[in-house]
Amino acid sequence: MTHQDADSRFPRGERLDESGRFTREELQLAFRNRGMPLEALRYPLTPTGMHYLLTHFDVPYVDAATWTLTVGGLVSKTLTLDIDAIRARPATTLAVTMECAGNGRALLTPRPASQPWLLEAVGTAEWTGTPLRGVLEDAGIDDGAVEVLFTGLDRGVQGDEVQSYQRSLSIDEATRPEVLLAYEMNGAPLEPQHGYPLRLLVPGWYGMTSVKWLERIELVAEPFTGFQMMDSYRYRQTSDEAGVPVDLIRVRALMAPPGIPDFYTRTRLVEAGPITLTGRAWAGRARIARVEVSTDGGAGWADATLEPALSPHAWRGWSFEWTSIPGHHTLSVRATDEGGNVQPIEQSWTISGVGNNMAQRVDVIVE
Amino acid sequence: MTHQDADSRFPRGERLDESGRFTREELQLAFRNRGMPLEALRYPLTPTGMHYLLTHFDVPYVDAATWTLTVGGLVSKTLTLDIDAIRARPATTLAVTMECAGNGRALLTPRPASQPWLLEAVGTAEWTGTPLRGVLEDAGIDDGAVEVLFTGLDRGVQGDEVQSYQRSLSIDEATRPEVLLAYEMNGAPLEPQHGYPLRLLVPGWYGMTSVKWLERIELVAEPFTGFQMMDSYRYRQTSDEAGVPVDLIRVRALMAPPGIPDFYTRTRLVEAGPITLTGRAWAGRARIARVEVSTDGGAGWADATLEPALSPHAWRGWSFEWTSIPGHHTLSVRATDEGGNVQPIEQSWTISGVGNNMAQRVDVIVE
Repeated sequence: MTHQDADSRFPRGERLDESGRFTREELQLAFRNRGMPLEALRYPLTPTGMHYLLTHFDVPYVDAATWTLTVGGLVSKTLTLDIDAIRARPATTLAVTMECAGNGRALLTPRPASQPWLLEAVGTAEWTGTPLRGVLEDAGIDDGAVEVLFTGLDRGVQGDEVQSYQRSLSIDEATRPEVLLAYEMNGAPLEPQHGYPLRLLVPGWYGMTSVKWLERIELVAEPFTGFQMMDSYRYRQTSDEAGVPVDLIRVRALMAPPGIPDFYTRTRLVEAGPITLTGRAWAGRARIARVEVSTDGGAGWADATLEPALSPHAWRGWSFEWTSIPGHHTLSVRATDEGGNVQPIEQSWTISGVGNNMAQRVDVIVE
Repeated sequence: MTHQDADSRFPRGERLDESGRFTREELQLAFRNRGMPLEALRYPLTPTGMHYLLTHFDVPYVDAATWTLTVGGLVSKTLTLDIDAIRARPATTLAVTMECAGNGRALLTPRPASQPWLLEAVGTAEWTGTPLRGVLEDAGIDDGAVEVLFTGLDRGVQGDEVQSYQRSLSIDEATRPEVLLAYEMNGAPLEPQHGYPLRLLVPGWYGMTSVKWLERIELVAEPFTGFQMMDSYRYRQTSDEAGVPVDLIRVRALMAPPGIPDFYTRTRLVEAGPITLTGRAWAGRARIARVEVSTDGGAGWADATLEPALSPHAWRGWSFEWTSIPGHHTLSVRATDEGGNVQPIEQSWTISGVGNNMAQRVDVIVE
């Protein structure tokens, strides 16, 4: 299935060349869609302005004074809630690690043409909101409903279709207790780029599910088949396949690059001697069981020490003692979750570049 | 003058090819150094997490409980100030537009190898701090001092030199009343990436002067000739020239792209009919005298309507009524300051890609 005609007004290459060079379109996306600099792995909670951010279209302007959320479709009673009504409901605060499904896309060969994340599309924040479940209970879900459809106020063109950003969830997933309608991030009202005044927050899932700038929630009788469900966010090798929907975050560990960086190449300079390597690991709804570090480019691996997880929905710190000796080294880290899923060393390739959780490599010069 | 040997450990290309493709090093920098998405021109004050950000090295970790600022060198009395001592001093809040000297670099042909900004390296915030002047008066400037040297806690390699980030100012510039030691941005303590716990803020100058994570202020007897003064931040055509130091921000206007975007190409789709184009304009220490808009790719220009400036140090809003007709159009905008400086239509090329204030172009499809 493809949503793009050959005579598109907005041409989109399917795969980019292997020259190691990036297009201007990719660069534009890299500037709009902010990455978390990896030294921010030092913070258990990512400062708001360092959290990763993916905006498909533009950040919309929303006047909270006139904004309302509609909960409708196959319900007993359509609700229209303003932000005060939502804030007056029971509130929950959760530390949640969120990651973009496209994290690691730019490491793929060949490279799908889209947001070219290297490894920085992740962050953890404390989100405050009201459980979606209670709102759906108040509306009353009709028997014929099979999914909950979420519509944001962000509009644009993708795959040649003019669209509002829309994603759906099964009723089982949407009514899990940790799924929130969130209006605060790290103790402050959402900044505009994070979905002000209200966003969906679905812990454990890749970020595309946590629809920002929520405008409408609708109970529907058929599974939703819009662009954001059927195109980018599927695991598939060719555009002829239906593929498998992208859902929970795959296991990953990252390392805060040690030492100091060179400005342009970002190669790291490390002083010879003992050094503690640190980072964090996470995995959708599963717990992290193990983190291993290699200091020789992946030939040998040794266990890192794990810290407790920040919350059931957030990353877990790790550390590893290394005695570095002069020379060039490639450090690597990989995690295993309690389901036995091990982060791969090789790329995990799909047509749209989602779910590539291959292990990070960090080049260092020890002197 | 060049700070790089042929056998550098950290190779840096001087000029990149003209294929329109970008290197992996440029992409890495684009993800670390956050741009303001241009729809954020709608906000008089840029939300903190949407403000542009350029970090030469890594964001350092600073414990404010043990951090101190030293004011020394050629002074009557060396001061050691903790954050409470600085917060106890007279406070000023100023709305200031800040821009990176490299804004527009990636639009140059050929393109210098560095942070590849397109047009998004700008933002306006309300900064709160204490005037530097008062602190220098308390320390007492010796007669032999000619400059004030500022050292940040961020360290790394640039031009093959291991360095802390350092910039200097003349005593006249450093003692202007609007120069602040700033500890708040938009009413909240600085986030780590904006210089927590204390940064220099020099309104009117390009951002490289507003040293973050301040550690030391030193009165010196000779003009400072470190890397960040003599290399990137100079206007010059070849590396043999001494060149002219980069200082005040050059005049520029930007437009919030109208309509809705295509996800990958960012081409804009606009409905035919009347539309108000809006944006903002600014110029170092001068006022904006005029903003002109072209809707035909720069052939004809017409005056935009100007709003009052937000503060003497901040940008000025503008608007322009356009009746769009179906077809492909290239919109452009240019500003003129009260000193008579007009934004050029052609690129302003320098070896390090600084000060390229050529007019923005926005491609739109009207339907």
